[in-house]
Amino acid sequence: MMSENGALPLRGKVLTVDTMNANVKKVDYAVRGPIVQRAVQIEKELKEGVKKPFEEVIKANIGDAHAMGQRPITFFRQVMALCTYPQLLDDNKFPEDAKNRARRILQSCGGNSIGAYTTSQGIDCVRHDVANYIQRRDGGIPSDPDNIYLTTGASDGIVTILKLLTAGEGRTRTGVMISIPQYPLYSASIAELGAVQINYYLNEEKCWSLDISELQRSLQAAREHCDPRVLCIINPGNPTGQVQSRQCIEDVIRFAVKENLFLMADEVYQDNVYAEGCEFHSFKKVLFEMGPEYSSKVELASFHSTSKCYMGECGFRGGYMEVINMDPEVKAQLTKLVSVRLCPPAPGQALMDLVVNSPQPGEPSYQTFIKERTDVLSALAEKAKLTEEILNTVPGISCNPVQGAMYSFPRITLPERAINEAKAKGQAPDMFYCMKLLEETGICLVPGSGFGQREGTYHFRMTILPPTDKLKIMLNKLKEFHQKFTQQYS
Amino acid sequence: MMSENGALPLRGKVLTVDTMNANVKKVDYAVRGPIVQRAVQIEKELKEGVKKPFEEVIKANIGDAHAMGQRPITFFRQVMALCTYPQLLDDNKFPEDAKNRARRILQSCGGNSIGAYTTSQGIDCVRHDVANYIQRRDGGIPSDPDNIYLTTGASDGIVTILKLLTAGEGRTRTGVMISIPQYPLYSASIAELGAVQINYYLNEEKCWSLDISELQRSLQAAREHCDPRVLCIINPGNPTGQVQSRQCIEDVIRFAVKENLFLMADEVYQDNVYAEGCEFHSFKKVLFEMGPEYSSKVELASFHSTSKCYMGECGFRGGYMEVINMDPEVKAQLTKLVSVRLCPPAPGQALMDLVVNSPQPGEPSYQTFIKERTDVLSALAEKAKLTEEILNTVPGISCNPVQGAMYSFPRITLPERAINEAKAKGQAPDMFYCMKLLEETGICLVPGSGFGQREGTYHFRMTILPPTDKLKIMLNKLKEFHQKFTQQYS
Repeated sequence: MMSENGALPLRGKVLTVDTMNANVKKVDYAVRGPIVQRAVQIEKELKEGVKKPFEEVIKANIGDAHAMGQRPITFFRQVMALCTYPQLLDDNKFPEDAKNRARRILQSCGGNSIGAYTTSQGIDCVRHDVANYIQRRDGGIPSDPDNIYLTTGASDGIVTILKLLTAGEGRTRTGVMISIPQYPLYSASIAELGAVQINYYLNEEKCWSLDISELQRSLQAAREHCDPRVLCIINPGNPTGQVQSRQCIEDVIRFAVKENLFLMADEVYQDNVYAEGCEFHSFKKVLFEMGPEYSSKVELASFHSTSKCYMGECGFRGGYMEVINMDPEVKAQLTKLVSVRLCPPAPGQALMDLVVNSPQPGEPSYQTFIKERTDVLSALAEKAKLTEEILNTVPGISCNPVQGAMYSFPRITLPERAINEAKAKGQAPDMFYCMKLLEETGICLVPGSGFGQREGTYHFRMTILPPTDKLKIMLNKLKEFHQKFTQQYS
Repeated sequence: MMSENGALPLRGKVLTVDTMNANVKKVDYAVRGPIVQRAVQIEKELKEGVKKPFEEVIKANIGDAHAMGQRPITFFRQVMALCTYPQLLDDNKFPEDAKNRARRILQSCGGNSIGAYTTSQGIDCVRHDVANYIQRRDGGIPSDPDNIYLTTGASDGIVTILKLLTAGEGRTRTGVMISIPQYPLYSASIAELGAVQINYYLNEEKCWSLDISELQRSLQAAREHCDPRVLCIINPGNPTGQVQSRQCIEDVIRFAVKENLFLMADEVYQDNVYAEGCEFHSFKKVLFEMGPEYSSKVELASFHSTSKCYMGECGFRGGYMEVINMDPEVKAQLTKLVSVRLCPPAPGQALMDLVVNSPQPGEPSYQTFIKERTDVLSALAEKAKLTEEILNTVPGISCNPVQGAMYSFPRITLPERAINEAKAKGQAPDMFYCMKLLEETGICLVPGSGFGQREGTYHFRMTILPPTDKLKIMLNKLKEFHQKFTQQYS
């Protein structure tokens, strides 16, 4: 109501930090946290001519291949251009296989336009192609297109499945087991949904491998205060870069059966395996090879994306998930839930299709495609090795082999005085370290505390994505910085 | 544990309808509900050669312009193709203004690639263009790019703001006021978040206008059992097609101030205004024209999208929101929250840029652009009129003028016997009607019960998007069906 003199009453905001969603406040997302915000600021300062001890910020904080100079796969972009502007189908600059892919995708779109909504689960022919890809990848184990849901990046699928699984209150609240270190999408989504985060620690001494005894310990402790129902695995690992052995996956599946857990397998780095003797095994494949007693029982959702591997098409937000043994009534609920957001972006769906249905021998684009893919993957393998080698020459830094994915997660020894100074500032010691590194060298990394680590240990995550020359410079700058930092605080 | 004979123990599913997220179960989304699922089935049956009394399904259930044959705007698709496959920048088939737009967008992308992640809030230059567009649209009232968040369609923005606002338990739980009839994204998101839905009824007798006295009634009733904090408005209206008067918007703003409500203005149909004497007024503009006493106080989020208006690019999932007077600490939380999903799809962001930064007089693409836009909008205006006119010739159907948006929401009179038969089947009477319509004519509409309506009234939502010829056929088939249906059940 107006007051007597006609002025509006004083009023506070409707929405304040005190009255907002409390779960959202608990969300933390280090990959784009304070250190990245400061990096963006520094970039602006550099542009404005502010003098710094470096000329550019090197962002090794996020798995963003194109931003680091990786070129898109020509075939993928040709098809996408054809889908976007079909007049180009008459242009003889474009190879026939690209045109065929584009025509096929467009025929599956409403009004033959990629601007139409698709079905909520995703374009029919894309889901079929995804199922065929999985079947080929997994040595013939069948995949049903009805179990495939296209998603807005893998993140979207992961959040959706966690959402379905979140229920109960207090001691019956859903608990979600995640590895520590973890990719912070998991902790963030668990916080947002108000589920309970259950940490199991990877074994740094054994190359970040997963010990069943640790799973058991963590589960038992969690059962005291919540209802553990989900086990999340990232393989190849983010941020830790390990590749799980077949044996380990089998053990995890047995554990899930024994303990009645829903399995979520984040396999977005499935093509990113570099170390000799390592191989990617999908959870789906191992599950089915263990026989019908397992393959008919275990509830599994696995996730893939257009953002990683050799294509690195993050901006398109393409992805899929496959759900195995999901209760049909729950599946109907899932389909309903995804329909509220209408559909994943159609260009991302089309791109996902190309990833699972890439040029075949005999097709005009095959040679170029294979060359481009091989170039990217072998450069990554080289950089994985380089990173491990150079980092391990630095006293006070120890780095496990980067077996796969796109990251190294080295352990750093910090002097007592640096730890104390950080604590006095209310900062995690590795945040303090990374912030100093950024200010002095322009290198942007993410502190280990953003991913979780054993109490009293410190790490950072660094992508191996910068071009080899730049990566070498960066690693040597890092070496120099670490030595200086150690001296300064000793 | 294995049992003694080595067999795995019997176990039920981890995830069942009984143990899943209870809020998700409450979600309902009629626009893609059972009737649409049946339509998809029928399409399959037709393909398989099953004989039906019609040859094709006409989907008038969803605002999906391209699926209904509308052609994309040439300029938009040219720029998108250039962004996707920059080799085309050397091709003289593409006009210079399209190339300039593409170059500018690519320069704002990491590694000049639309495949890189963007900042979570959205590409810088796109947010600037959006702010400039709003400023032009609103007669010079300033807009700050820092208040612009790019989104994955408007839906994503709406859910995000509702998420921030959802707090409290029991009687302090956040209440969200939504119009009835409403667009079911609102009821679905409110259910998913566990917030409280507060219905205010639009006045069908006065062309679906909004009465402040009804807002007051609805708010008062809600205060008995929850904490009403948000008022959602859809203007132009979905599903009801009304366009709010400037006076009404002022009244709503005064009401929001008086009652301490956060305003959410869904303005995705801002270019879809057809009726003479009607004009689109943005909430932002009216708010600022009411003077600083209002413009410095009212918290407002408004939403726009690439999916509607004259472009109808639904598949790209582009959108933006502008937040006004949001508490800076909450804004920081919002920025953090959106960063968890990394970024909206980059192609959708680029497309949003073109919508707010379309060809200007003097640029080579201007004439074609204007012609294409005008053609779409005048065809829609014609179809809006046609729909109203033909429907109102049917005894038992009464249809308000379609002043804007893309839908008619006529009221239908159903014979008592039909109502009883529906109820006996456990169906809403208008669902029963629409299902019969679909089976007998192939026309797919959404029953009014999916949007909400006054007790004892029945409606359907029909898009005006089919091409004029098809629309006429459809309306006449509908007329015939209604007469037959009425006879049959009288």
